[in-house]
Order: sequence, then structure tokens, then C-alpha cells
Amino acid sequence: MRIALDALGGDHAPKETVKGAVQYVQRSPDADVVVMLFGPQAALAAELAKYRYDKARIEVHNTTQFVEMNEKPARIHKLKPDSSLVRAVAAVADGTADGVISAGNTGALLSSSLFLLKRIEGVRRPAIAAYIPTSYGGFIICDGGANVDVRPSDLVQFGIMGSAYSKRMFHKSNPRVGLINIGVESGKGNEVTLQALPLLEQHMENFVGNVEGRDLFNDATDVIVCDGFVGNILIKFGEGLVTHVGQWATSKVKKHPISMLAVPLMKPALKDLLTDLDHEEYGGWPLLGVNGVSMVSHGSSSARAIRNAISSAAQCVEEGLIESIERGIKAHLDIYEETSAHGAT
Amino acid sequence: MRIALDALGGDHAPKETVKGAVQYVQRSPDADVVVMLFGPQAALAAELAKYRYDKARIEVHNTTQFVEMNEKPARIHKLKPDSSLVRAVAAVADGTADGVISAGNTGALLSSSLFLLKRIEGVRRPAIAAYIPTSYGGFIICDGGANVDVRPSDLVQFGIMGSAYSKRMFHKSNPRVGLINIGVESGKGNEVTLQALPLLEQHMENFVGNVEGRDLFNDATDVIVCDGFVGNILIKFGEGLVTHVGQWATSKVKKHPISMLAVPLMKPALKDLLTDLDHEEYGGWPLLGVNGVSMVSHGSSSARAIRNAISSAAQCVEEGLIESIERGIKAHLDIYEETSAHGAT
Repeated sequence: MRIALDALGGDHAPKETVKGAVQYVQRSPDADVVVMLFGPQAALAAELAKYRYDKARIEVHNTTQFVEMNEKPARIHKLKPDSSLVRAVAAVADGTADGVISAGNTGALLSSSLFLLKRIEGVRRPAIAAYIPTSYGGFIICDGGANVDVRPSDLVQFGIMGSAYSKRMFHKSNPRVGLINIGVESGKGNEVTLQALPLLEQHMENFVGNVEGRDLFNDATDVIVCDGFVGNILIKFGEGLVTHVGQWATSKVKKHPISMLAVPLMKPALKDLLTDLDHEEYGGWPLLGVNGVSMVSHGSSSARAIRNAISSAAQCVEEGLIESIERGIKAHLDIYEETSAHGAT
Repeated sequence: MRIALDALGGDHAPKETVKGAVQYVQRSPDADVVVMLFGPQAALAAELAKYRYDKARIEVHNTTQFVEMNEKPARIHKLKPDSSLVRAVAAVADGTADGVISAGNTGALLSSSLFLLKRIEGVRRPAIAAYIPTSYGGFIICDGGANVDVRPSDLVQFGIMGSAYSKRMFHKSNPRVGLINIGVESGKGNEVTLQALPLLEQHMENFVGNVEGRDLFNDATDVIVCDGFVGNILIKFGEGLVTHVGQWATSKVKKHPISMLAVPLMKPALKDLLTDLDHEEYGGWPLLGVNGVSMVSHGSSSARAIRNAISSAAQCVEEGLIESIERGIKAHLDIYEETSAHGAT
């Protein structure tokens, strides 16, 4: 198996991307995975020279262009065809690689994945599956930010795709799917969720109905579907809130000398918690619905995040995520005809 | 001044509502505020008999109906005109009271406030202003859940009303207003936010632009505007997340005997933090845009929340919140003509 990595993607590239690739290879000696690094040959070679690793398992593919973090993503595959990001995606499109990872410009990864990998047959809108850790194993938000405006029927496809990902990546045998809403009753919601509810009831095997924001943390569901506007805001709001409360707690402790004394004793528990809360544990979020494994990593990714993202991408390939989504979508191809017949789109 | 309280509203009514009213009167001996309790005379008298307080400052108004928590709110003022909730709102409408509070059915409070108090001239959609505490003083989410689908121009009115509330309640002289969005760049967002951005830029004095969920906790703004679907989900998501991380941290501490030893030392800092995080500190969220002070309290409100809500409602009256909103809305009445002329609604 071959995983393509945009070695220039992310705030700490290429130092951390190269280090992440090396760490992955060092720590997975039995894995049949070759990492393809895309970026300027000289810079990558200089980074690689710092480490000892199995040279047969890391390749360097020279590129001459670079996609900036805030660059407009539209038509990026045409505008910067020799960028590390586009070349890494193109490697999956031409069959050289089995999956691609970038911690760079998310919009550019989405746009080039959409154009070069194309959609899985029947998928209207690919969506990001964002994993949120909890004490009982976490849940997936789908869409995490790829589509700001959606049709009710898109939410059904997000449920099908999120469900396939939950099965393949987290080994849930029959993942529950919920619809984020402002109340559990069927009459609650905005236009899109009101119309999506009966569609989800009809098409999802294990649909648990409307779920309120609060109950997401009471193990109410394995996958929660929403448009990418709500999903993206929720994810960032949660990130900001947890960080803020952590800093706030620290400042309160500093105000009480007696509590300061307890800090060294609290360290083992805190370390445990921070490990579980760490978004780098899975390293990346897949873009579901394109015809190939394409994984978005956080811009701030460290080597640890990159090495975990390679491992996640490899698992998606191994477990046949794309085929699983294909089957799920195929079984519900009637969803769009139905909704357009009822004028529900 | 007279504040009407729905004494049957909330999970712990009338015990906690009556106790809250008594505590308010006991703790604010100089305030010129009479609390009007609405509910069944016998039950309220029995609760009041438990306490010593200035009898001139608490009145009982007998009612014979009750609005259930999950009852449909539409036309509730017609269906249950003698319910504690509707009678308390009616007291503001007929000028007997200056403000109303209910911890009962939120939808019913909104619906009866809308019908009995009417809207402030020019307001299209009243909105809930939800206060979110932070280490640096907090921010307001407007709308917190009154309107699931909004027009771009509604978001401008939410900004005007939230800004007036921030001034009157939190004494911010020139509150910053932001638009919640998935990115700070002007090209980011869904249909509604894309259209709302230029309107907000034009009409809001101190508009800071798009704000991402993450930056809400970096003191980016005093008021954040969004539709009530996003606002309500964010608030409940935040509530669930903070509770979950707290429980998670506790379970981690329990796994490490050495960390358990530190718990008593940590107590002063934790107590401090929990006080600041407590949503009962302000007791209620006003429904802005109706012609009268109408305050929603959490269903789980304790006596403490109720007493703080009375105090908040009294402050809104004293500081002339309604007049302040009137002025703000009047200065931007062109917003709807403008947007309909441009087809932006």
C-alpha cells in the first residue's frame, strides 16, 4: 500500500511532516505501507537526512509549487498542478497511491479531491467526518465543514457515509445515526432538519432521531449529521471552549496557594485526560464521498498527528472504506428521485 | 417596580420559585421591587408560610391553569388564559407589572410574550440573548433559540438588540458585535451569513466581522449574532461538553490514588471556577424585541437562579432596556426596505 503525503502542508511543514512519516515507518515495521512524500526534493532530503529509517518505505517526489494556507481553493488543480498538495491527490487519482493526507489548505484538498478523484457514484456532496473524543469512545460529526448549505437528502448521505466510516475505522457493528436539532420532538427544527427527519427515518437502519447538543455527550449516537456550517462551528466552538476552561481552571489554581501545592499530585490524572482529549490521536478526518481515501489534518499538526494520520489512512484503505460507502450509497440511490418528486430538496 | 413571576414554571416549582422570590426580597432590602407570584393561591401560601420576609413586597395572584413543559406553545394565551405563565405575561401587557420571568415552557413564554406584549416597532423577529460566561467577562449569543430560520437582515436586528442588552446589563460602553461563521474571510459562510456580512458592516457601529467558534473564547466580541438554530445548538453543546469534561476529569483523578490525595487541596480553586461557570449567576435570558421585559429561566432553576433572574429583570427595567432597543431599531428601520429592494431577504 502507498500513502501520499503533502509534505509542505501545515504550520510546521516540512519538519513535522517528514518527521511524522519517519516515525510512522519506524513504529510500524510490519506494515506493508510506503509513504510518498511530495515537496521540494532538496528540502525533504535535508529533513530525511536527520533520521535512520527503512529507505525502501519513504519516497520523495519532487514538486515545484506550493498552495498557500489562505489561497482560494477553486480550480487549484489547474492553477497549481505541480504543488505538493495537488500532486499528492493526483497520485491517488492515477493509481500510484492508495490514499492522500494534507495538513495544508483544507479547501484546496477538498477541491482537488473532488476534481481529481471524482465522487463515488450517486454521492451529491462529499462531507468531512470529524471525530470528537469522549470518555466512552467518541462520536463522529458529519459534515464537519465541507458543505455550508445542504439539502435534506444530503443529510441522509452524510449518515450513510459517516456510518460506513464508524464501522470501518472504529469497528462499531451497527452505528447509531442522529440528526442534530434544537429538540428531540419531531416538530422541532429548521426547514432542512424538519424535511430531513422523515427521510432519515426511512433510509437509515439505526437512526435514533433528533439529538440535542447536550445529549451528544451522553452517548446518544455514534454519528451525528448536520450541514457543514453547523458542524464546523460546533467543532471550533468545542475546541475553544475546552481550551478556555482549561486555562481558566489553571488561573484559579494559581490564585490559591493551597491548590498550587496539589498540582504535582494531579499530574498523572491530567496527563491521562489530555491524552484522551488530544485531537492528534487519529491525526486526520477523511473527506467521505470522493472516490479515494483523502484525509484532512489539522493545520497545527505535529509529527505525532501526521504519523497517526498515515496510520488512519492506511486503515481506511485496508478496511475497504470506499467500497463500503459505495455499497451504502447504492442501496439508497432512490433518495434523490424521491425527494425531488416530493419537492423536498 | 413590579416583577411578575410564573411561580409554577420550572422543574422545581413552586418550591424553588417561591424561595427565590423570598430570597430576593430578603437580600435586596433597599430595592423598590415588589414580586408578583402567579400560581394556585393555596400552594403558594403554603410555601410562603415557611419564610419570614417583608409581606408588602410579595403578592400572590391566584391562577387555575398550568402550561405543561412540552405543551405546544402556539396560541397558548388563548388556550390557557388563566395559567400562571400567561397571567404573568398579561400583567406586563396591562401595565400591572414591569417585567416577567418564567422557568417554564420557553416556547409558551415566547409565544405569549409575542402576542400579549407585541413587538417593539420595527422589530421583525424577537430573539433570545444568552449570556455565556468566560474568564474575561463573557459574551452574548443572539439569537439563543427563538428563531430557527432567519433572514440576513434579522441578524442586523439581533446585533442592535444584543448590543443594547450588553450596554444596559453589562455596562459595556460600545459593545463589539460579531457574526458567527466558518472563517474570518468575507467570502466564507452560508447563504444567510454571506448576505448578512455587508448589512452588518453598514449598520453596526462596532462590527468586528466574521468570528469563528474558536475565537469566541479569545475575547473576540461582546455579542455574537446567529440564527436561533445555530445559537441553541451551540449553547447546549457547550453545556454538555463542559459537564462531560468535568466528569471525565473526575474519573481520571479516581484512577490515580496520588491524584485523589490532592482533591481536598484543589477544592478552593474548583469552587471558584464553578461559581464563575454557573449559568444561574444571571438567572435568565431576556427575549429581546418584545415590548416589555420578558425573561426565560432554565427549567432546572434553583431559588438562586430565580432570585438572580428577578434582579436581572429589575435591572433591565431600571436601565431602560426597552427604550434603548427602540432607539436602536428606529435608527436602522431602512434595513428591511433596503434588503427587499436588493432581493437579499
